[in-house]
Amino acid sequence: MVLMDLFLSSSLCGAAAGPGIPEIKAYLNGIDTPNMFGATTLIVKIFGSIGAVAAGLDLGKEGPLVHIGSCIASLLGQGGPDNYRLKWRWLRYFNNDRDRRDIITCGASSGVCAAFRAPVGGVLFALEEVATWWRSALLWRTFFSTAVVVVVLRAFIEICNSGKCGLFGRGGLIMFDVSDVTVSYHAIDIIPVIIIGILGGVLGSLYNYLLHKVLRLYNLINQTITFGIAVPSGLFLPIILMGSAYGRLLGVVMGSYTNIDQGLYAVLGAASLMAGSMRMTVSLCVIFLELTNNLLLLPITMIVLLIAKTVGDSFNPSIYEIILHLKGLPFLDANPEPWMRNLTVGELADAKSPVVTLCGVEKVSRIVDVLKNTTYNGFPVVDEDVVSPVGQATVATELHGLILRAHLVQVLKKKWFLQERRRTEEWEVREKFTWVELAEREGKIEEVAVTRDEMEMYVDLHPLTNTTPYTVVESMSVAKAMVLFRQVGLRHLLIVPKYQAAGVSPVVGILTRQNLRAYNILTAFPHLAGSNCREKRN
Amino acid sequence: MVLMDLFLSSSLCGAAAGPGIPEIKAYLNGIDTPNMFGATTLIVKIFGSIGAVAAGLDLGKEGPLVHIGSCIASLLGQGGPDNYRLKWRWLRYFNNDRDRRDIITCGASSGVCAAFRAPVGGVLFALEEVATWWRSALLWRTFFSTAVVVVVLRAFIEICNSGKCGLFGRGGLIMFDVSDVTVSYHAIDIIPVIIIGILGGVLGSLYNYLLHKVLRLYNLINQTITFGIAVPSGLFLPIILMGSAYGRLLGVVMGSYTNIDQGLYAVLGAASLMAGSMRMTVSLCVIFLELTNNLLLLPITMIVLLIAKTVGDSFNPSIYEIILHLKGLPFLDANPEPWMRNLTVGELADAKSPVVTLCGVEKVSRIVDVLKNTTYNGFPVVDEDVVSPVGQATVATELHGLILRAHLVQVLKKKWFLQERRRTEEWEVREKFTWVELAEREGKIEEVAVTRDEMEMYVDLHPLTNTTPYTVVESMSVAKAMVLFRQVGLRHLLIVPKYQAAGVSPVVGILTRQNLRAYNILTAFPHLAGSNCREKRN
Repeated sequence: MVLMDLFLSSSLCGAAAGPGIPEIKAYLNGIDTPNMFGATTLIVKIFGSIGAVAAGLDLGKEGPLVHIGSCIASLLGQGGPDNYRLKWRWLRYFNNDRDRRDIITCGASSGVCAAFRAPVGGVLFALEEVATWWRSALLWRTFFSTAVVVVVLRAFIEICNSGKCGLFGRGGLIMFDVSDVTVSYHAIDIIPVIIIGILGGVLGSLYNYLLHKVLRLYNLINQTITFGIAVPSGLFLPIILMGSAYGRLLGVVMGSYTNIDQGLYAVLGAASLMAGSMRMTVSLCVIFLELTNNLLLLPITMIVLLIAKTVGDSFNPSIYEIILHLKGLPFLDANPEPWMRNLTVGELADAKSPVVTLCGVEKVSRIVDVLKNTTYNGFPVVDEDVVSPVGQATVATELHGLILRAHLVQVLKKKWFLQERRRTEEWEVREKFTWVELAEREGKIEEVAVTRDEMEMYVDLHPLTNTTPYTVVESMSVAKAMVLFRQVGLRHLLIVPKYQAAGVSPVVGILTRQNLRAYNILTAFPHLAGSNCREKRN
Repeated sequence: MVLMDLFLSSSLCGAAAGPGIPEIKAYLNGIDTPNMFGATTLIVKIFGSIGAVAAGLDLGKEGPLVHIGSCIASLLGQGGPDNYRLKWRWLRYFNNDRDRRDIITCGASSGVCAAFRAPVGGVLFALEEVATWWRSALLWRTFFSTAVVVVVLRAFIEICNSGKCGLFGRGGLIMFDVSDVTVSYHAIDIIPVIIIGILGGVLGSLYNYLLHKVLRLYNLINQTITFGIAVPSGLFLPIILMGSAYGRLLGVVMGSYTNIDQGLYAVLGAASLMAGSMRMTVSLCVIFLELTNNLLLLPITMIVLLIAKTVGDSFNPSIYEIILHLKGLPFLDANPEPWMRNLTVGELADAKSPVVTLCGVEKVSRIVDVLKNTTYNGFPVVDEDVVSPVGQATVATELHGLILRAHLVQVLKKKWFLQERRRTEEWEVREKFTWVELAEREGKIEEVAVTRDEMEMYVDLHPLTNTTPYTVVESMSVAKAMVLFRQVGLRHLLIVPKYQAAGVSPVVGILTRQNLRAYNILTAFPHLAGSNCREKRN
């Protein structure tokens, strides 16, 4: 029990030091996490984790390695650190959210692969835990990254055969090879296996509960910047050690009742505690398989993982979700709550402050005003008084698209103003702005100085507007809008009216990730909390 | 070479007999494939595949087993065969496309697991090849299904230890255990490994090419119903056998240059031909791992798979895509073509025949007319002459939602007519129609008889309308609409106008899977074929 106390306290301290896997997960979910993938972070993580492991702390190395992998991927994708960026043409392929997220997912899977020498486990970890959406091309891209990692590892192990590389490469490519151990179990052994799974699930959720309490306490005492001690660390190793200790203890207690080896109890204990705390299944199964190289363990490992996950899920959320919540990151859950079916996006938009739209050709003073007095990151662009498409003399309004705050700030910075109210062409904007500038997400209105004369000028927003934003009709349920938001990986979702009439605005609202979070919706609509779904719709 | 000829011909004949994995893939992509998962199909597949394997044909068993698994899953999800359906309340949870697809994906992964005793490989096969969209809950659900399969298999193997079960269970849980074989390879061996991969890719795509030609020829000669001979069969085994033969031949030829074992050449040859033909990576890697139980093979297997896939992809599409294409199933590709960025959904809708909308309370004669004269499966429901939401005395139109053809046919069959033009309540429709009837997709207008008097009556479509269909604005590019269509798994997508004015219809078009297929778009817009993308947008 002394052993378990030690592990518990050490992992509680080190668990959430600085940004790590939860932040990468948040980034891939579409949340802007500033300074996550810089060159400085990379260097700190590399030396920090070497130092931490060398100092003998009970810390995992997969957390820092995942972060290091993601940093390298991000730096490669943007052409180097901020100040020394290369501007090769092919780099523009990473100048959109989707491809940037893909390359960072590849980096994260390479990190897990390097930590456990588990290439398939790394791919699955990235898909099951880190990435929040998925397409089949991503699968073989992450697989390719981990293949490269494993070949490089293998080559280094061969070079280091002489023994000059310290502890690296001891034991070959498999870290804890138990393929020589004869595993034998029978139908009757299902009972202890189920017990391990249930206890692992209970202990795992207890661990999550305690971690939550300790981190909150720590956060109250120590208002600096981060939780925990500032040491790069991962959760895997402490949990594996605790789990093995628990499993072996259980094995000693139950020794006379079964004929399962005590070592096997330790492996299953580690697996059950991992699943009970992290709630992963397939990736943990493959990582254990790749760590132990014994395929005969597979059936019982699967049962233990599934039972522990199910038991744990009935108590509290997974450890990564708890940390995300504690850090206040607006992570969007995978599944909408049942009561979200009872609320339309139109009702949700009505409860917010009214939508701020800009005209296609807008006055500078209004842009400055809007940027200073709102915090929105995107604004619908609406053209008024255009000729009606049905050809009659009636007046129509047109939804032109969505413009980003960052682009508006760029326009003000570069003083791309017009003396009169007129339209410009798309090539004009391309002469003025490079694709690097347009891909920038940062830029503050406070840094911009606009003279009184300039305030009276105009800006043509048309060429800078994204003319194809995703939209939903106001009668759409929040639940379905959320599925769209997450599946397609959006930042803004425009709400269009279901009515067609003169005088109706072509956009009635705008939804962001924050608006779709269950907690925020319940603040505005507290009566929904207990309501059931009216009807399950297709 | 005689061996190779034999395999080639046998697999060519048996490759595409009747519905199989491609149809399951199509179903999960959202395509209606009639009579795929009936009780009759199940029985035919079970006895057919036992007969085929017992007769000594060179056929794989994974195809039939995947289909059998999917059939069982589908029957469980709907409460039994069509005529003897149970009507338990919990079954209604499967009465929507999403959950029905999920349970069939679980069935497919169980089939692969049963065929190769590869639980993790089964999960990954279902995700990489069969399912066309994915969410994290699906991952552990498929994992749970395969865990059950592997435990049942394991229990049967134990029961059959006495040797009374024929060939079943020989060799234990691992089918081709090579964990005792000492695998040794060095950095220099990368060269033969690369050669195996490249040749495997070339041969795999050649195999696809020949299969395509033979199946087309067969289709021309034999206009019955299906291609090939009507024997349930899979592609894995013939390709593995051919690949092993090719690999060993290569090993014999190159024997003097490397120190890789000839058996290892056979394994790598099989892997390379599989990847060259089927273009899967992660799932093949895990299936090979689970078949051979030797983790040291992992790095070189990964390299071979990736090289063979890349080489194969440069020649032609994967074998499943070829079969899908030959069978004329409107499968939606994973990635939009670059030229799809240059076309808006509004332009696409204009090129089609105009959209057919129904009123909220519609005359029976018009419903009959529309159902008889169009083939659409969904119709937008529009309310005209409602009071404008801006409160002025102007007239507005309102997009109420989308109604399915099947529901309209049900209404006509049950003669749920009104004497006058009025609104009804949702509970009235629930009294009249059961959820089983509303979940039915079949039903033909030709089977319905409506009298002359009834033709003059009305139907209130409001309670039967899906009020929250997904929509896109007409300025959305086809590429982005397609991403939405596929990621969210849709059947219909409504196009709403970007203009707001009196007299504009609130819906300007409707898109289905067929409209979004590259071939169909190019028929209407041939000039797009060669065009590049104007600009890569986020």
